[in-house]
Amino acid sequence: MGSRHPDRRDFLKRGAAFAGGLSLGAVDPVIGQTPPADQDVEDQDWSSPELIAYGERSRYETSVRVPHGGRPSPDAFGLVFHVATPLQDQVGIITPSALHFTNTTRGAIIPNIDPREHRFMIHGLVDRPLIFTMDDLKRLPSVTRLHFVECAGNRSRPQHVTVQETHGNTSCAEWTGVLLSTLLNEAGVKDAGTWIVAEGVESVKGASSIPMAKAMDDCLVCYGMNGEAVRPQQGHPLRLLVPGFEGIFNVKWLRRIKVVDRYYMTYNDYGHLRREPHDAALTYQIGPKSVITYPSGGQQLPDRGFYEIRGLAWSGTGAVSRVEVSTDGGGSWMDAEIRGAAHPMAHTAFSFHWTWDGREAELMSRCTDELGQVQPTRAEAAAFWRPGAVYPGTPDEPLRVTGQDNSIQPWRVESDGSVHNAIA
Amino acid sequence: MGSRHPDRRDFLKRGAAFAGGLSLGAVDPVIGQTPPADQDVEDQDWSSPELIAYGERSRYETSVRVPHGGRPSPDAFGLVFHVATPLQDQVGIITPSALHFTNTTRGAIIPNIDPREHRFMIHGLVDRPLIFTMDDLKRLPSVTRLHFVECAGNRSRPQHVTVQETHGNTSCAEWTGVLLSTLLNEAGVKDAGTWIVAEGVESVKGASSIPMAKAMDDCLVCYGMNGEAVRPQQGHPLRLLVPGFEGIFNVKWLRRIKVVDRYYMTYNDYGHLRREPHDAALTYQIGPKSVITYPSGGQQLPDRGFYEIRGLAWSGTGAVSRVEVSTDGGGSWMDAEIRGAAHPMAHTAFSFHWTWDGREAELMSRCTDELGQVQPTRAEAAAFWRPGAVYPGTPDEPLRVTGQDNSIQPWRVESDGSVHNAIA
Repeated sequence: MGSRHPDRRDFLKRGAAFAGGLSLGAVDPVIGQTPPADQDVEDQDWSSPELIAYGERSRYETSVRVPHGGRPSPDAFGLVFHVATPLQDQVGIITPSALHFTNTTRGAIIPNIDPREHRFMIHGLVDRPLIFTMDDLKRLPSVTRLHFVECAGNRSRPQHVTVQETHGNTSCAEWTGVLLSTLLNEAGVKDAGTWIVAEGVESVKGASSIPMAKAMDDCLVCYGMNGEAVRPQQGHPLRLLVPGFEGIFNVKWLRRIKVVDRYYMTYNDYGHLRREPHDAALTYQIGPKSVITYPSGGQQLPDRGFYEIRGLAWSGTGAVSRVEVSTDGGGSWMDAEIRGAAHPMAHTAFSFHWTWDGREAELMSRCTDELGQVQPTRAEAAAFWRPGAVYPGTPDEPLRVTGQDNSIQPWRVESDGSVHNAIA
Repeated sequence: MGSRHPDRRDFLKRGAAFAGGLSLGAVDPVIGQTPPADQDVEDQDWSSPELIAYGERSRYETSVRVPHGGRPSPDAFGLVFHVATPLQDQVGIITPSALHFTNTTRGAIIPNIDPREHRFMIHGLVDRPLIFTMDDLKRLPSVTRLHFVECAGNRSRPQHVTVQETHGNTSCAEWTGVLLSTLLNEAGVKDAGTWIVAEGVESVKGASSIPMAKAMDDCLVCYGMNGEAVRPQQGHPLRLLVPGFEGIFNVKWLRRIKVVDRYYMTYNDYGHLRREPHDAALTYQIGPKSVITYPSGGQQLPDRGFYEIRGLAWSGTGAVSRVEVSTDGGGSWMDAEIRGAAHPMAHTAFSFHWTWDGREAELMSRCTDELGQVQPTRAEAAAFWRPGAVYPGTPDEPLRVTGQDNSIQPWRVESDGSVHNAIA
């Protein structure tokens, strides 16, 4: 601290020499009490009715979802979009609704539905088939819960560069709606009703078979998301939420649920086609998973010194109970801090204080859930992948849907501060 | 249930005659298993790059903020906007960022700030004055917390029609940032530093005096809101959060904090002008408060039968510990269900199951916080209002800022199902 006006770059290079408790290498000390020069601040046109009604984000904020490669679809449309959440920009645990990942599975359509016209029916093996309007549903006992939704194919391209590309098909929102059990009890499920099939309004009918035990446990028929109506890309005006199950079960634009007496194999089960029906339900839950979002692939550490490593952990079977971090490629593990309450089947934020010494490092995180399940290494996970489930993908890049990949993600920090996906 | 195809309106009028456990008067029973007719569903143009990047809400969703009358401003601009959250449409506890209330207090401006150029300084009675870039701040230990922000003048027009008008100047978000104590400790507060003054970038400088005990307790320097960057109307790229204190302390577009040795009375303290400085800090906290959002003023109950009464409760001094509901104008009170965890200084959702018998009713809610403070009746609250603080308001409607009004809100349900503000 000899110079009264140290050159900023020089100061940064000296890294941890700063006097404060956190060794904040990157902070400018200032002498005297002169505030920063007034910025050339431009004002928004605040008289705009749009700004009053519904305030948008700063035009300087450019975090967006990105599409990732087309994948084959058995439907007639021939084209689907997978749009991934920018997890590298994530703060907190709520994914902004506008940035929630969207995977269309039944053609590249997003319907515009008038909620006043929408109806939801429960029928099949019930005593009283019922049709609900949206207003009917909003009169009923409701719940609000934080839950993630994740595509089972998240990480199907594990060698990609950024965390948005490797893990961006998971998002977390505050969902509000009616417990499905409330509606099923109102309809009266007959003894023979052991499964449900849920269907949306798509032209290619989506339908998922879900065991009655799950339907009666914690499934939600949701009209609210992050404080407002569910957005069109998430199923406006009504979607099914099946906490912890693979994303495809969370049927959007929900129009009916039929109570049936057995598992029906549908288009939605293409990922389970090689399985026996009586085994399928056992594999619906997302395994314990975590990923470091900062620092992550494609990012650049400006200098040595203090960093808060941050990331997300989640499990389809319950709450996250522990997150560990390694900075030496798995040689040693230390407990990360779980931030706030760990909600069941919800993204859980973790952090770990790290002072980077400027040498190569490999960052990893490992999640343990409340059942004691531990996120596996890549080698451990590969032992469970289905060898047969290979899809043609694009000409340049065959797509292998080998089953859920919840293996540990390594990020390599080079000595120049660049961060790379350590999966070759 | 004699008719196999009961006329819907007739069925609704019969109200609670339905066979299900919840007496869902408004639900259509259906015979057989015919699904609702296919809707004329229009698809979004999903090839739009904007839809991929950042998904917007349904064009059928029209919940918006509304401006409420101009109020006098001592600044040169002569015009301020107060834009209230549509609490009547609220689901869950998070206010969507686009619908977060906004009150400008220093002229009707919303600056567009480039976060790469923004600097934040801590100076004054500290050992090491510091200037932080946004990147500096994002390297530091961070926290994520749910907190409400509420204007002290919320309910300054208690006789208004809707809950948006009476209570819409409170909102709740998931805030992410650095504890102010982390930054102050890094700068090193001198013994004489007993207060801070926080300032934003506005042309009319905003500044608030905050006791050091609060600054070191739970104040946040926030860059994140509901999972993304703080929005311009909320202070992008950086705002101060002072949990539980009146909204004006939560300085937007934060550029500096000066550590000082006493309370400074500033423009921001206009609401406290008649007070002694040494008393002022004792009155900064928002009192225990609650309001029923459904059913609320201006809404219409379609028929007799089951309703879930829903609302929000909050307190500036800690977590909500109890919410009671009365359906007979305060004659009797019953415990409502607190939904999910009650976070300190955060909106807390509550609900209460009610079967409306079609007769006049008066709905009220009452909050008790963890300190045991109970939300007062209107008469009890009025005893504490400041008699002198009257502002001219608009020609048609004098504005009385009499101090925080946290009194119980009554909604009257008429026999025709219409809901009205019961404050004459």
